[in-house]
Amino acid sequence: MTELIYEQPLNEKIRSYLRLENLAQQIQRCIAQDQQHQCFYPLFSLVELTERCDYRTEVLKDIDRQVQLLRSICYLQEADSEQVSQLIQQLNAHKAPLQHPERVGCQLKQDKFIFALRQRFNMTGAYCNFDLPQLHFWLAKDWQHRQQDIQYWLHQFEPLLAPITLLLSIYRNAAEFTPLSAHAGFFQGTSPQPLSLIRVKIDPSHNCYPTISGHKNRYAIHFVDFNIQRHTNETIAFSLATCG
Amino acid sequence: MTELIYEQPLNEKIRSYLRLENLAQQIQRCIAQDQQHQCFYPLFSLVELTERCDYRTEVLKDIDRQVQLLRSICYLQEADSEQVSQLIQQLNAHKAPLQHPERVGCQLKQDKFIFALRQRFNMTGAYCNFDLPQLHFWLAKDWQHRQQDIQYWLHQFEPLLAPITLLLSIYRNAAEFTPLSAHAGFFQGTSPQPLSLIRVKIDPSHNCYPTISGHKNRYAIHFVDFNIQRHTNETIAFSLATCG
Repeated sequence: MTELIYEQPLNEKIRSYLRLENLAQQIQRCIAQDQQHQCFYPLFSLVELTERCDYRTEVLKDIDRQVQLLRSICYLQEADSEQVSQLIQQLNAHKAPLQHPERVGCQLKQDKFIFALRQRFNMTGAYCNFDLPQLHFWLAKDWQHRQQDIQYWLHQFEPLLAPITLLLSIYRNAAEFTPLSAHAGFFQGTSPQPLSLIRVKIDPSHNCYPTISGHKNRYAIHFVDFNIQRHTNETIAFSLATCG
Repeated sequence: MTELIYEQPLNEKIRSYLRLENLAQQIQRCIAQDQQHQCFYPLFSLVELTERCDYRTEVLKDIDRQVQLLRSICYLQEADSEQVSQLIQQLNAHKAPLQHPERVGCQLKQDKFIFALRQRFNMTGAYCNFDLPQLHFWLAKDWQHRQQDIQYWLHQFEPLLAPITLLLSIYRNAAEFTPLSAHAGFFQGTSPQPLSLIRVKIDPSHNCYPTISGHKNRYAIHFVDFNIQRHTNETIAFSLATCG
């Protein structure tokens, strides 16, 4: 079995990034494989989250911060400068689409089909063909047509999702995994630098999953036995990466 | 393209039946094909609906009513008595599981995994691996294992879903489709007997879907152009079945 990676954000920014990334991945799965109306759950979550909060300012600030950090690395000549300047270029390329006056995803709100569906989707089980005959009609369109529709809807969020994917890969690549073990299913650690993301890699054959808590400079990992859904007292081997 | 059937319930009982049937069909699709965590949406809707309302008394009453109707048909010798008595037998067989003292689906509530997931699933986008590490663990189990889990969860609702499927097939088979046309995209009708279900069959090449409204003895059908999401003024050919 492949090892599983569990991630815990230690600040609000990374928390939002992971949430948005997860929704985008779900929609991608609905583009790769026909999952009927299931694409609308992550799509409407994406619409709701981007309505509640305009992430663009934060992402723009983060891009500038990362560019500055990368430049200082270049200056210190610690890294492959070719690769670093490519990354800087990629980051900067994401800035223009984020500076568009219209909020990300706002075009979707003018779509009558999407609007009608969204009003109903929060109601329990309310997508029978009598609730939403237009959904029944849309679902009968050939898969290629629907695939294009979903691709178009997801594309509306690209200005936000593309830089987030890149930024998350930078955060994730900033730290390597170290093998460790959790005695009696528990591990805690501290860090002098503020952390933003904790990553735990574990073999599922332990039949455990980690619950991670923490804040900036300290974190704790409890391993839970899946079968009994309770803390395990076993010693658990795992790998840890703490990203700044 | 195959013709599409749109259904409109004209009473609360059929409305509930269609909703529960739709949820069961969605879960069935998640058993037939791996759709990751998507099975939990219809599953939790099923849990919620059966918590809100104990449908068993109504289904039991309906079984008795249908058995009585079928017996009167037998008596009138209008129908194939062999087939009718088989149907009566099938209906009666569903009564015992419905008379169980425990409410349908109540075992699921004791499942800690299901309980933890359900608490989170109503929150927007809240099924990242940091929200629900146990879900991340479960999703990494092999498909066969997860398939069995979903099958087991759905099975809890079988005492309710099985008779509903049979009852709905009786309602649907009670009326045949008649070809009709809706001038200027509109059709209305009346019935001396109280109706419970309106069924509209239409070729999707018209690029229209019906919105149906009604109550017991009268109903109206408006055809809506999918592209403009507005009432069409075209004459639309369709088939109609009105089930008592």
